[in-house]
Amino acid sequence: MESKRYEIGLKKLQEVDGAEGISVVESLNDFAPDMGKYIVEFAFGDIYNRNGLSLTNRQAVTIAALSALGGCEKQLQIHINAALNVGLKQEEIIEIIIHCVPYIGFPKALNALSVAKEVFKDKKTGGE
Amino acid sequence: MESKRYEIGLKKLQEVDGAEGISVVESLNDFAPDMGKYIVEFAFGDIYNRNGLSLTNRQAVTIAALSALGGCEKQLQIHINAALNVGLKQEEIIEIIIHCVPYIGFPKALNALSVAKEVFKDKKTGGE
Amino acid sequence: MESKRYEIGLKKLQEVDGAEGISVVESLNDFAPDMGKYIVEFAFGDIYNRNGLSLTNRQAVTIAALSALGGCEKQLQIHINAALNVGLKQEEIIEIIIHCVPYIGFPKALNALSVAKEVFKDKKTGGE
Amino acid sequence: MESKRYEIGLKKLQEVDGAEGISVVESLNDFAPDMGKYIVEFAFGDIYNRNGLSLTNRQAVTIAALSALGGCEKQLQIHINAALNVGLKQEEIIEIIIHCVPYIGFPKALNALSVAKEVFKDKKTGGE
Amino acid sequence: MESKRYEIGLKKLQEVDGAEGISVVESLNDFAPDMGKYIVEFAFGDIYNRNGLSLTNRQAVTIAALSALGGCEKQLQIHINAALNVGLKQEEIIEIIIHCVPYIGFPKALNALSVAKEVFKDKKTGGE
Amino acid sequence: MESKRYEIGLKKLQEVDGAEGISVVESLNDFAPDMGKYIVEFAFGDIYNRNGLSLTNRQAVTIAALSALGGCEKQLQIHINAALNVGLKQEEIIEIIIHCVPYIGFPKALNALSVAKEVFKDKKTGGE
Repeated sequence: MESKRYEIGLKKLQEVDGAEGISVVESLNDFAPDMGKYIVEFAFGDIYNRNGLSLTNRQAVTIAALSALGGCEKQLQIHINAALNVGLKQEEIIEIIIHCVPYIGFPKALNALSVAKEVFKDKKTGGE
Repeated sequence: MESKRYEIGLKKLQEVDGAEGISVVESLNDFAPDMGKYIVEFAFGDIYNRNGLSLTNRQAVTIAALSALGGCEKQLQIHINAALNVGLKQEEIIEIIIHCVPYIGFPKALNALSVAKEVFKDKKTGGE
Repeated sequence: MESKRYEIGLKKLQEVDGAEGISVVESLNDFAPDMGKYIVEFAFGDIYNRNGLSLTNRQAVTIAALSALGGCEKQLQIHINAALNVGLKQEEIIEIIIHCVPYIGFPKALNALSVAKEVFKDKKTGGE
Repeated sequence: MESKRYEIGLKKLQEVDGAEGISVVESLNDFAPDMGKYIVEFAFGDIYNRNGLSLTNRQAVTIAALSALGGCEKQLQIHINAALNVGLKQEEIIEIIIHCVPYIGFPKALNALSVAKEVFKDKKTGGE
Repeated sequence: MESKRYEIGLKKLQEVDGAEGISVVESLNDFAPDMGKYIVEFAFGDIYNRNGLSLTNRQAVTIAALSALGGCEKQLQIHINAALNVGLKQEEIIEIIIHCVPYIGFPKALNALSVAKEVFKDKKTGGE
Repeated sequence: MESKRYEIGLKKLQEVDGAEGISVVESLNDFAPDMGKYIVEFAFGDIYNRNGLSLTNRQAVTIAALSALGGCEKQLQIHINAALNVGLKQEEIIEIIIHCVPYIGFPKALNALSVAKEVFKDKKTGGE
């Protein structure tokens, strides 16, 4: 009964965010299931699935946008993880955040780096 | 008497933002010259001059950050121009902004697209 | 060849934003047509078309969110117009913005009121 | 010795935010008592006490504004609680936040939904 | 029939913002008069009238807050004018904005400097 | 091998932020050392080291900017501490934040006051 957009989106979400992305959507299931549906269908089925930008570039853009917004540490964590999944190196992620400093200021960039530090540490501890 | 960072930064500013970037710095000269100096030395001499990220990727990240901040239409105009200068295609710039929609919402993305539309039109009218 | 979501969304956009909303989507057609498509399909076909909140309440929520974001005067203009279309009174729109003051501060609320003032004046001049 | 605005505000604060609102004001008493006074007098005595918008609509507007600001999870918690106090249903609160997605993006909306989930869980555990 | 807070606030508004501040309040009179009333009573009668911070320090803090918010150019214009009224020098205002750069980034600081440049130019043209 | 800007900046960082500031920079050393370098060289060596504004005024401006940005509680904590280091009194810091209320709204100001409360408590417990 799932739409084709949902199917495509779920596959893309799995590819990009891995188990963590699926778990965000599942955690919404018994509470606000349509929110999970829109994340899958729109953010991943419609947007992430587009051509014209590589997945690594998409993650670079996502990290910049989330760092600039501020207050989105949970989403940054998922998307920094996703950035590693799709092939960005740790140094590239740090470079993206440092590049944002002149535009968004040090505090928001430091917050983003703190999230990156935690994600990289977890990867190590996790045995990858 | 200019520092080496200033020299490097000015060259990079010229390369990235072209005449428009130089004109921003010059417009600050009789008013807040240190502001222009810091843009040249720090934003371009220190940050843009770093390795680890291509100039096209730096512009993609800049456009995402400025779109997410909101209210930075003047700077977006310069950096969308710069993005074309360093080799991003018009469709790629549109794609970067569309990719931001799920993170920053439609209104900020529409504002960024309006700026892009104006920049692209000026390029055309200008004979390119 | 338009999807059902597009059809539903276009009808809803027409109902809520009227000619002005259609014109925003059309202005994207030769530049970033997918952006217009997503506004119609997702923002109006998926979200505005939901049950559980009246159209007047949806516009109240939209005005509050746009006022809080800041820098979205163009979108506020369209949605204050839309608020009148779906039946909110001018005093109610002012009341919504005044209610936001303790949360978003006076400057953003003043910006939103300026937009409202212009919209209300245009309505009058326009003969309504 | 309390002003009439304070009295009116305190009564309104009690009505809207309940014990939790009172506790915020009290926690300011030995530290920045004027801040508590202004919350009571201005936010509740002046603004919440106005006519022209129902209390449920005021809470809908407040939730939208706080979600859009970002980084105001503590205040969202109090005002989602308050929304239940004045008669909004859980599904309506979720609907308000979902309605904000196209304007504020998924990350801020997800943060708001996380707060709502916690508040609703506490209500249940608390025996209501 | 005006309250004492209104009287005090109006005097303070006159002292700080001068004719321009009065004109903002008056422009609200036929549209959203309570908004003007709250600006006078709360922002100026309650807050600006407090002890514990000099008027020049209050203006420095205001300029920093408005620059950081972004999108508040109209209010920045009034408060940079006010800063000159209460005795801050042009160089101090520029210094305040430059000091904000590491926290808020170059774009928002450049926007604030543009406003300052206009205000200073108007002062000159105006014969001061 | 450290530049003169680094030396000047480190001395200023020590003077303003004390041990806590040094620890932020050190925590970046094994992860993103250039970020620490830029904080020292640019934020402290270039900006904080400027004339034209006293250190207490610089801290007032910093606290206002960080409160207005929102979501920068960690940086607020360091800079409220720094404000005490350079001679601002606790009541002055509270006054700065209360002054921001009309501009940034109650929620962001309450978040800033919460940080201040924690910092002041730690100072006391720490034996000062």
